[in-house]
Amino acid sequence: MIRVGVIGYGYWGPNIVRNLHALDSARVAAICDRSPDAQRRAKHAYPSVQITSDASEVLRSPRIDAVAVVTPVCTHFALAKAALENGKHVFVEKPLTSNATQAEELIELAQKRDLKIMVDHTFLFTGAVKKIRQLIDQGELGELYYYDSMRVNLGLFQHDIDVIWDLAPHDLSIMDYLIRKEPESVVATGERHLNAHADVAFITVYFPQNTIAHINVNWLSPVKVRTTLIGGEKKMLVWNDLEPDEKIKVYDKGVQIASREGVYELLVSYRSGDMWAPKIEQTEALKVELNYFVSCIENNETPFNDGVAGLRVIKLLEAAEESLKLRGDSVFV
Amino acid sequence: MIRVGVIGYGYWGPNIVRNLHALDSARVAAICDRSPDAQRRAKHAYPSVQITSDASEVLRSPRIDAVAVVTPVCTHFALAKAALENGKHVFVEKPLTSNATQAEELIELAQKRDLKIMVDHTFLFTGAVKKIRQLIDQGELGELYYYDSMRVNLGLFQHDIDVIWDLAPHDLSIMDYLIRKEPESVVATGERHLNAHADVAFITVYFPQNTIAHINVNWLSPVKVRTTLIGGEKKMLVWNDLEPDEKIKVYDKGVQIASREGVYELLVSYRSGDMWAPKIEQTEALKVELNYFVSCIENNETPFNDGVAGLRVIKLLEAAEESLKLRGDSVFV
Amino acid sequence: MIRVGVIGYGYWGPNIVRNLHALDSARVAAICDRSPDAQRRAKHAYPSVQITSDASEVLRSPRIDAVAVVTPVCTHFALAKAALENGKHVFVEKPLTSNATQAEELIELAQKRDLKIMVDHTFLFTGAVKKIRQLIDQGELGELYYYDSMRVNLGLFQHDIDVIWDLAPHDLSIMDYLIRKEPESVVATGERHLNAHADVAFITVYFPQNTIAHINVNWLSPVKVRTTLIGGEKKMLVWNDLEPDEKIKVYDKGVQIASREGVYELLVSYRSGDMWAPKIEQTEALKVELNYFVSCIENNETPFNDGVAGLRVIKLLEAAEESLKLRGDSVFV
Amino acid sequence: MIRVGVIGYGYWGPNIVRNLHALDSARVAAICDRSPDAQRRAKHAYPSVQITSDASEVLRSPRIDAVAVVTPVCTHFALAKAALENGKHVFVEKPLTSNATQAEELIELAQKRDLKIMVDHTFLFTGAVKKIRQLIDQGELGELYYYDSMRVNLGLFQHDIDVIWDLAPHDLSIMDYLIRKEPESVVATGERHLNAHADVAFITVYFPQNTIAHINVNWLSPVKVRTTLIGGEKKMLVWNDLEPDEKIKVYDKGVQIASREGVYELLVSYRSGDMWAPKIEQTEALKVELNYFVSCIENNETPFNDGVAGLRVIKLLEAAEESLKLRGDSVFV
Repeated sequence: MIRVGVIGYGYWGPNIVRNLHALDSARVAAICDRSPDAQRRAKHAYPSVQITSDASEVLRSPRIDAVAVVTPVCTHFALAKAALENGKHVFVEKPLTSNATQAEELIELAQKRDLKIMVDHTFLFTGAVKKIRQLIDQGELGELYYYDSMRVNLGLFQHDIDVIWDLAPHDLSIMDYLIRKEPESVVATGERHLNAHADVAFITVYFPQNTIAHINVNWLSPVKVRTTLIGGEKKMLVWNDLEPDEKIKVYDKGVQIASREGVYELLVSYRSGDMWAPKIEQTEALKVELNYFVSCIENNETPFNDGVAGLRVIKLLEAAEESLKLRGDSVFV
Repeated sequence: MIRVGVIGYGYWGPNIVRNLHALDSARVAAICDRSPDAQRRAKHAYPSVQITSDASEVLRSPRIDAVAVVTPVCTHFALAKAALENGKHVFVEKPLTSNATQAEELIELAQKRDLKIMVDHTFLFTGAVKKIRQLIDQGELGELYYYDSMRVNLGLFQHDIDVIWDLAPHDLSIMDYLIRKEPESVVATGERHLNAHADVAFITVYFPQNTIAHINVNWLSPVKVRTTLIGGEKKMLVWNDLEPDEKIKVYDKGVQIASREGVYELLVSYRSGDMWAPKIEQTEALKVELNYFVSCIENNETPFNDGVAGLRVIKLLEAAEESLKLRGDSVFV
Repeated sequence: MIRVGVIGYGYWGPNIVRNLHALDSARVAAICDRSPDAQRRAKHAYPSVQITSDASEVLRSPRIDAVAVVTPVCTHFALAKAALENGKHVFVEKPLTSNATQAEELIELAQKRDLKIMVDHTFLFTGAVKKIRQLIDQGELGELYYYDSMRVNLGLFQHDIDVIWDLAPHDLSIMDYLIRKEPESVVATGERHLNAHADVAFITVYFPQNTIAHINVNWLSPVKVRTTLIGGEKKMLVWNDLEPDEKIKVYDKGVQIASREGVYELLVSYRSGDMWAPKIEQTEALKVELNYFVSCIENNETPFNDGVAGLRVIKLLEAAEESLKLRGDSVFV
Repeated sequence: MIRVGVIGYGYWGPNIVRNLHALDSARVAAICDRSPDAQRRAKHAYPSVQITSDASEVLRSPRIDAVAVVTPVCTHFALAKAALENGKHVFVEKPLTSNATQAEELIELAQKRDLKIMVDHTFLFTGAVKKIRQLIDQGELGELYYYDSMRVNLGLFQHDIDVIWDLAPHDLSIMDYLIRKEPESVVATGERHLNAHADVAFITVYFPQNTIAHINVNWLSPVKVRTTLIGGEKKMLVWNDLEPDEKIKVYDKGVQIASREGVYELLVSYRSGDMWAPKIEQTEALKVELNYFVSCIENNETPFNDGVAGLRVIKLLEAAEESLKLRGDSVFV
């Protein structure tokens, strides 16, 4: 039985608590939030759990094995560091920290103390992403050509970060999980319209062997779009996360250039076959992820979404941020 | 009655001929194509029109007032130049020429001879684009924040140009028509997978006052998408050109930042009201455009989609191409 | 403060309890269910509420003002009757009872005791239905021509009732609320495939002045559809309840027959204008409904979805059932 | 080379002529229409074809082998009869005639003269219907449970027939082609709102072994819907004819009732697997059909969509019409 303290009970925290609460292998030992309203909500929903406004109560409690950090990004490092220093495993909301140096420090600290860091890259635990990874691993798509994701809606403006740090960690972590190549360079463009932070941004990541990824994030879209196109040598797929049932559609479509004879005789052959929507596992991703967190602690295993994975995402975020400031110059990762 | 010679009867030429044929103010005087199959098709459909394989017959014929150039891009300049030199107005398929120098030469030549150049930016004559322009002119959207277009499908591979020169002229000409600001810089990324030309590309165009445009073109998408998001200070719209009826949806949605008090108190107010799909004129755009071409000749008026407009698009294409080669560095226009 | 006992904690009961629990004006005094699993779930979620397996504890408790009956249809009458006899107001899941005689007995009993009956016709409290009613009341649609609803999916098979008694109460109550004319006759067709009850059914209701309603209910559809077309003399609308945002689309479309001269000269004029999706209130319908139930009790007002409204629906269900048995003969209401 | 005369050049006639014109095995020998405007259009498009306003010229011409009758329904019988009497094969627009007696007379006449009758049930030649038939024949769906079709839009009002005779022949012919059982009875309801003919109608057809078909036709719908659900014992499918690419989706979904123990223990098991959209042949159906017509004549074969098939549809239309007049009473076929 792993006893978890949850710091942060704003927008996402309640989901962490609800799912931990439902696990047999974990127990929510304490919930911490500075906001009286959040404390009241927590108390109403979990009358038997300790509620506090003081993070150090959670960080130092001997009755707590692990801490979930679900606070604004700028506070992740200090809280996670304190937790690790107090001998607690940490589950940290994405992105792991505000910069790579902080992430590296946490990774080193956790390694020394033999503690786990898990970054909440929830999407990696959805049925959809797991199915796409499986299709790629089975060679269904062939060599990957491109990954093109659109994540836009009239979003929750964040006061401390821009749209890249807010939304792109989702796409970057999925991309990292699916493509499994070392990124070569990053180009980001974008613009701000309401405050000091970009609210619209477009990121390109170059990989070896002509694989390319593109991420479109936007807080100012009138419609919600969560669609990713993945093109492969053999097949292509569309993942529409807003579809209730048929989230992934695999197309037996493609183009082949057979040969080339003379300027006017480019022999392109198109292939167009069936479309297929595989059944997707429906379990709530966060439940699967938290269960995995607890099991990694119990079995002393390194999660695949560990601090190192979180660091890879942060390095890409930093590169994107730097490129954005230069209005699009190429930044090597 | 304007007598038009049409050079090129491949994929798009038949549409030009069909629409010219239906105009009362124009007559198709000759059709030229080197392919025997194209000649046969033309003869079958228009038994009374002169069909030839020799472009110079069209370019020099005294019975012809204007020439429509509907051939591969690399031939546009030579054909349009010869037509102008022979005193004929020209209607040229987009993009106008292969580079800006050529376009400038054509513009100068036309000016000297007092002839018209019209570039076939067909989309500017669709009911949808005309309606969006009208909404912008009426101030319905307010200050423009962003223009974000996606034009992807399993496309016709072109042998002589890449996906940017093939598809982006549509979006760049629409963007130019709607935004009406001088672009500042262009960033393009992309990749090639099958032959020497990029088949996937992403273009960002920076404008003054934080207006930004983004164009996603892809020949390797399993699904066809033709969607443009336009975000404004007051309202936002989605133009889905594949919708048969409700192509444009205007959303009374927005975000306002009222004030900012302290780090944790960003006062963002979201506005969410009705959605409205205005009725769109249904006339075939190419018919409207060709009618306008004829009327510009008859009334000696300069078309708004003239050589200068075509040149603006080519300069953006050249900038995008240069940026693409640099894997995304910013190129000033 | 109205104290409510809830009988039935299966599929729908938890929603009743959750919404009552959130009201300031009500308190969930007891939850009753015979299933140990349901009791466990209730206890886990509401540790401070009395949980019982004995309905009579709820029905007779002096500490309870009103009873919500959320059990299988065949038990509604006995439970509601007992509640009324014990001086309690009742909120009964739809359909009110298994037949009209029972409903009439409950209505009479409630009247005598000056108690409220409310039938859970939840849809009448959705933003969508309220908006449609408002549009009709404002004369936006003009004279109603037809109401055509489709409610199909791979449904929860009910063991004691057929698809008409399970799904059609939704549509019949909405239709009753919107059309406000006395039905003239009912025709129902349908078929059973798996057990003794029809799983596919089609109901037509004739109203005066050529208004007609049609309801398509199906437990065996591979896709979920919740779409209603409403045609009026002036405008028409489509209500798609599965759309997250634009549930109602109002079309400025219509047909007019101007006059008729000779057999070949029917002058029909079509009108096609804008489409408009009004903003819809987003509050959870059940919350609004339960709040209304409590307020009707407190202010001694008769709810519009009272026993008499429930009886009207049951009479239509009985007529449909009779017609279905006759494989579609017309049954007068 | 079969020489065909086409009578009727209004809405559908031009499509018949265009497709016949493109066939190598047929020649359009004459086009007849009483409207001067139609004659002008025909002359413009086919300058070399004989155009006439006198049907008897076509019916009696010795240079004509077959006649296509593409006129209002009430004229089908007289024209087809005259054609057969003059020794010509006939291709008749759906529905074949205005009543069953006429159809029977034509069938008998054709048989005596050894001539072909083909009824234009175009949908039977679409890739979609052919694929569904193939899936049924291969046993993919298992025993058919239901066929439920919706064919609604703001339609072309017909002056001489109601919405059933106008639209339902499509669905009835498809249903007849797919279900291949003898219908038992028909129930139709509907209403008229603008002139003397019903503009909204709902038809149910009962078949043996609990197979049921339902057809929803409506001239007054604000949106166009062309969707058919087909439920089978093993699988279910949705055919959306408005989808450009994925017209048919086959769902590996179903319900099974394993056993039944006690009133409260109905063991229903749901099966939910992959969805699959088979590739559909894209050839224009009318072209395939007219090619088949010509080939049936040349090879002296009886088309499957012959007069007898047309008669089956007319008998269902007559039964539906009779039921409609009775406001829904069951009519045996």
